[in-house]
Amino acid sequence: MKYNFGAGPCILPQDVFQEASEAVKDFNGLSILEVSHRHKDFVAVMDEATDLVKKALNVPNGYSVIFLQGGASLGFSISALNMMRDSKRASYINTGTWSKKAMTEAKKAGYEVLEAASSSDTNFNYIPKNVSVDSNSDYLHFTSNNTIFGTQFKEIPQSPLPLVCDMSSDIFSREINVADFDLIYAGAQKNMGPAGTTLYIVKDEALGKSTSSFMPTYLDLKTHAEKDSMFNTPPVFPVYASMLNLRHLIANGGVKAAQDRNEAKAALLYSEIDQNPLFEGTVAKEDRSNMNVTFLMNDEARAEEFNAIWQENNLVGLKGHRSVGGYRASMYNALPIESVKVLVDVMKHFSSKG
Amino acid sequence: MKYNFGAGPCILPQDVFQEASEAVKDFNGLSILEVSHRHKDFVAVMDEATDLVKKALNVPNGYSVIFLQGGASLGFSISALNMMRDSKRASYINTGTWSKKAMTEAKKAGYEVLEAASSSDTNFNYIPKNVSVDSNSDYLHFTSNNTIFGTQFKEIPQSPLPLVCDMSSDIFSREINVADFDLIYAGAQKNMGPAGTTLYIVKDEALGKSTSSFMPTYLDLKTHAEKDSMFNTPPVFPVYASMLNLRHLIANGGVKAAQDRNEAKAALLYSEIDQNPLFEGTVAKEDRSNMNVTFLMNDEARAEEFNAIWQENNLVGLKGHRSVGGYRASMYNALPIESVKVLVDVMKHFSSKG
Repeated sequence: MKYNFGAGPCILPQDVFQEASEAVKDFNGLSILEVSHRHKDFVAVMDEATDLVKKALNVPNGYSVIFLQGGASLGFSISALNMMRDSKRASYINTGTWSKKAMTEAKKAGYEVLEAASSSDTNFNYIPKNVSVDSNSDYLHFTSNNTIFGTQFKEIPQSPLPLVCDMSSDIFSREINVADFDLIYAGAQKNMGPAGTTLYIVKDEALGKSTSSFMPTYLDLKTHAEKDSMFNTPPVFPVYASMLNLRHLIANGGVKAAQDRNEAKAALLYSEIDQNPLFEGTVAKEDRSNMNVTFLMNDEARAEEFNAIWQENNLVGLKGHRSVGGYRASMYNALPIESVKVLVDVMKHFSSKG
Repeated sequence: MKYNFGAGPCILPQDVFQEASEAVKDFNGLSILEVSHRHKDFVAVMDEATDLVKKALNVPNGYSVIFLQGGASLGFSISALNMMRDSKRASYINTGTWSKKAMTEAKKAGYEVLEAASSSDTNFNYIPKNVSVDSNSDYLHFTSNNTIFGTQFKEIPQSPLPLVCDMSSDIFSREINVADFDLIYAGAQKNMGPAGTTLYIVKDEALGKSTSSFMPTYLDLKTHAEKDSMFNTPPVFPVYASMLNLRHLIANGGVKAAQDRNEAKAALLYSEIDQNPLFEGTVAKEDRSNMNVTFLMNDEARAEEFNAIWQENNLVGLKGHRSVGGYRASMYNALPIESVKVLVDVMKHFSSKG
């Protein structure tokens, strides 16, 4: 038994592993790996996965749910290309690594990119609140949760512009109002499923309106919305495993219940970080992520000792990203609160030894 | 037991299903679905998969092997963008559906597209031999095997231009000389692995030389060659299953032995088609594909009866593509000759009843 705090690809429910493993051996008489994507049994999987996304997030009418490939890294380009209108200016809130990559791809797509807000002044350890939006921009883009710096938007930014959001690392972890957005995109490999598929939720009104002179067929969301994610061969197994995970989410109370569990886990760990004299959080309290908890140890001399102890206790994936250092505990939907208790106990025990 | 003649995603070795299923439950103490792509155990998988491709195809020095996402449909754009040089003209051999899609994407990428040869005059039932190459084109593109029409290049086209090939449906099925090509791309889901990853083999000299004004980072092969396919989160499970399948290929004699088996299977089925008065092949004999065998029945009135019989005998995936009609038996590497014998027996039996 390992306690997997990895930042992603990350823990999913054990039931999903069991069912996915079984389908690799037997899915209606074949392996799920050898089933044609045009077979009715897989068409039913794609339809169910799509419907489960709509159910989990209360996606209103007038939005399409699409499963693609390429991760958020391709999503940066897809979102920019599809949202291009007359101004060819785009506003981005810069909360660090992922926002910056999104801005780079918007520039490559031909935009003048405006920084509507930024927390670069203190190494992105907070969410900027004062957003100055250029009213002529085609859209406002933000990254809802920041895996590296451990920050998370608690309120969506107010803006008259169409909102575009990279929700890769916290989609399905809390309730959202899809109607607030023109486009949401998210790599699967946190709360949706294994690596290999990318979710798009797009307002139908926004489809087919791009003014980009460059639009490969695969990058045009209209292509995929019209073909129900079956324009070309989809990533069959990642979509199947995502469907299993979404079934599990719904069966366990849906997004609201997941949010409650995530808030309880976050409260437990942040409380320990704040109480324990050996540790300190890196992020402004009101902007702390419930998904990725970043913290430092105050006594560098004891770092090796601490690393040895959490590894001995079967904790996995706690090393902080090099941009922040210290530790990062990622606590996605599937991480049980028991794992957080083990971590907290290790921290308490370590502190008491000091 | 089903005999899976599906056109793709398609049959893979049973051993691969077993091993992949096991890894979904347990891969060094975690599920392969929850392992970080940065973990040394998965880095080792990516390295091994890359090395196995090089070994299987004798990839010479000076070429990079890359695993991406998006299928050949994105490959049409990636190949065009990366190979763009001064002329912005590209020559394509048109052998049907897939070639035409590739040509469409080249146009969208900004090329003047020239048709160097075409078999459109007889619904693509042969491989055109007279290739008129525009010497100013940036490259010559062809589709090595055509799943829909059942044709296959037996010799690569002679051309002074850099060769670009969509090898999605016959890579690893026969020996090739990689040095003949500047760029090969192939969706995994025939002979490499399950759907969800796409292979690129590119001459290093061709990297970073594009003159395209539009080049998203994800579509630039240089990005991925420099990062060993780890620029962003790769499709972990599809790459893992591909590695297992490539191990299996090497352990069973490599590509040469697979080619021998494929030729034996093709000889068996085409021989029956030619001998059996009820059936006829759709393709010029010298251009018949060893992967996808397309054939018609001469007595339409008995079609339903034949369909019922092969389905009763657990044959799967034999229905022809709507562009050709009739039947299509796809016989990728993993299809055992025993399955072909079952099909031939069914055809013989059916014919003797008539």
